[in-house]
Amino acid sequence: MTNLKVELSERSYDIKIGPEAFLLAEKAVRKLEKQNRPVAVITDANIYSLFKDKVQALTKNVIVLKAGEKSKCFSALAQTCSALADFGMDRSGAVFAFGGGVVGDLAGFAASCFMRGVDFFQIPTTLLAMVDSSVGGKTGINIEQGKNLVGAFHQPKGVFIDTDFLKTLPKREFAAGMAEVIKYALLCDEKLFCLLEKNALTRESPEMAKVIKACCAIKAGVVSADERETAKENGRALLNLGHTFGHAVEKCAGYGEYLHGEAVGLGLVLAARMSESLGLVDSECVSRTENIVRMYGLPVSLRSPIKPDKLVAASLHDKKNAAGKSKFILLNKIGGAFTRTDIEKSLVREIFKTAQK
Amino acid sequence: MTNLKVELSERSYDIKIGPEAFLLAEKAVRKLEKQNRPVAVITDANIYSLFKDKVQALTKNVIVLKAGEKSKCFSALAQTCSALADFGMDRSGAVFAFGGGVVGDLAGFAASCFMRGVDFFQIPTTLLAMVDSSVGGKTGINIEQGKNLVGAFHQPKGVFIDTDFLKTLPKREFAAGMAEVIKYALLCDEKLFCLLEKNALTRESPEMAKVIKACCAIKAGVVSADERETAKENGRALLNLGHTFGHAVEKCAGYGEYLHGEAVGLGLVLAARMSESLGLVDSECVSRTENIVRMYGLPVSLRSPIKPDKLVAASLHDKKNAAGKSKFILLNKIGGAFTRTDIEKSLVREIFKTAQK
Repeated sequence: MTNLKVELSERSYDIKIGPEAFLLAEKAVRKLEKQNRPVAVITDANIYSLFKDKVQALTKNVIVLKAGEKSKCFSALAQTCSALADFGMDRSGAVFAFGGGVVGDLAGFAASCFMRGVDFFQIPTTLLAMVDSSVGGKTGINIEQGKNLVGAFHQPKGVFIDTDFLKTLPKREFAAGMAEVIKYALLCDEKLFCLLEKNALTRESPEMAKVIKACCAIKAGVVSADERETAKENGRALLNLGHTFGHAVEKCAGYGEYLHGEAVGLGLVLAARMSESLGLVDSECVSRTENIVRMYGLPVSLRSPIKPDKLVAASLHDKKNAAGKSKFILLNKIGGAFTRTDIEKSLVREIFKTAQK
Repeated sequence: MTNLKVELSERSYDIKIGPEAFLLAEKAVRKLEKQNRPVAVITDANIYSLFKDKVQALTKNVIVLKAGEKSKCFSALAQTCSALADFGMDRSGAVFAFGGGVVGDLAGFAASCFMRGVDFFQIPTTLLAMVDSSVGGKTGINIEQGKNLVGAFHQPKGVFIDTDFLKTLPKREFAAGMAEVIKYALLCDEKLFCLLEKNALTRESPEMAKVIKACCAIKAGVVSADERETAKENGRALLNLGHTFGHAVEKCAGYGEYLHGEAVGLGLVLAARMSESLGLVDSECVSRTENIVRMYGLPVSLRSPIKPDKLVAASLHDKKNAAGKSKFILLNKIGGAFTRTDIEKSLVREIFKTAQK
């Protein structure tokens, strides 16, 4: 078992990583119960059917969401808050999220607003949630007008990452999670990048605990320096490496066609290509990025063609920058990235053209 | 025009108080617009019909809630967030609440969670909202299981208290607001108490700006010391003087029968009587409290009888204290109060008995 402390002054917390971290979550629940503090677990139908015994071992106060992104909505939030009230949740209590990113986002938002804030713990079950959603404090729901448009910053009091859950992940979901792992390596950890490209890691690789810890540490460092994403340059925005391209692909292909991580994988390749176009990196950096993305079973080009103009429009949407220019995260080496706000629309179009099969 | 600075380190803000404070709100909107920051106003149907010109002078991005407590619900919150998105609200933007406590609570919660937080300004139009809701940062909505059970702490960036709005208040609502003013005086300002009991202030009294400032200053002092109500003793809980009794009366009589302030007025009398029973104050303190409550047209006894046992149960509900004992705010003089957690149920019943006509 390894431990990572996320430094956020009075909101600091520990991430426990390793096989059997779930047992520590159980211990934490027992401790809260001894202090007469109410506890509730929020999970989804998939996790509940897979790990019913584990859920019930935590507490009898269980909220089971429908599996999938659709549960990140006002109606699920309202139902969750009502259920918490019915369980007798009070300000001394704690909510545990047991599941992937959707469960974490919804449960975290519910914990942030129930009685104006109760304690929140996470037990992430997907690789994506382990390396991404369990650090940073962003919680939220979707509305018709956009994803994550409503939410709160609410830091967990503790995160329990049990790497045994990786073994139950579908291969495709594991690969999607690896896209975020590759992102962290590209952002600021060349050694991690080399480890990842040496041999393709699998759901069973013992190195996964170490890799997850490295990713969480990178994110924790970025978040500590820019908790509420107010930095004008770099800061939390760096974590969006590959995401501006990726979000456009996800949206234009129709949500669900690409897993988020798959679109991010392709986005990382496009970010490397844009960096090369601007003379920031050499072609070797691009080919290493392409190779590693391919190696983890992620796409390096679009599965079906999408008009570049459509992708450009989607990638510039909602960005409030000077007309025709937008913010992108670029590489200056494997393990080095920065934000740039003066990217010409024409270049964005050129790069999206290279994504066509 | 007078100014009160609420000290909350990086969340500090100014309250402008006086006739024509509304013009300063307009100026603030113009300044935001010059910075290309989106602005929206949230109000209710009553205020909108009374001050349509004023609302439209602020911005064309207006959200009009149904008047009344029912708008403090998830469905109004969801509609508000959708409307903000449609207005092009982004993280640089600001939401103005223009109305009473319901508008402030809903708008503040929407501002706290839209894009995980946008700036929030208040233009309170009722006396209650001026002296209570515009300081403290508590925002929220009601759910079936209870009032204000879901919400956030979200401090405003500025509050504009235009005392001219008092003139448009119905007399009964003005009186209800005065209950909170009397509460502040009883809590910690004997001089204010003396001013209030000298001559009954009216909606037109020029002293009102000074009185409102004194109340806001008292609340600001309490809130600064205990922003998130975590103090074990005294702290923010003091602001509930008269409210434990008052809430029980509101609930048992059926919400709407007593205005909140009317129930609080009666609650203040009962708090004084309980303090006398415990030998903390003399009978003069009680009679001065009764007189001032009566003087402002507020009830000193129940309008129709309610069984004491029912009131006791309602007042103890949701308080997680040792069996049969509960937390009350008590007086030790006019202008001095403290919290006590060892009040016997039998005493609570005795005090409620004195409220019967």
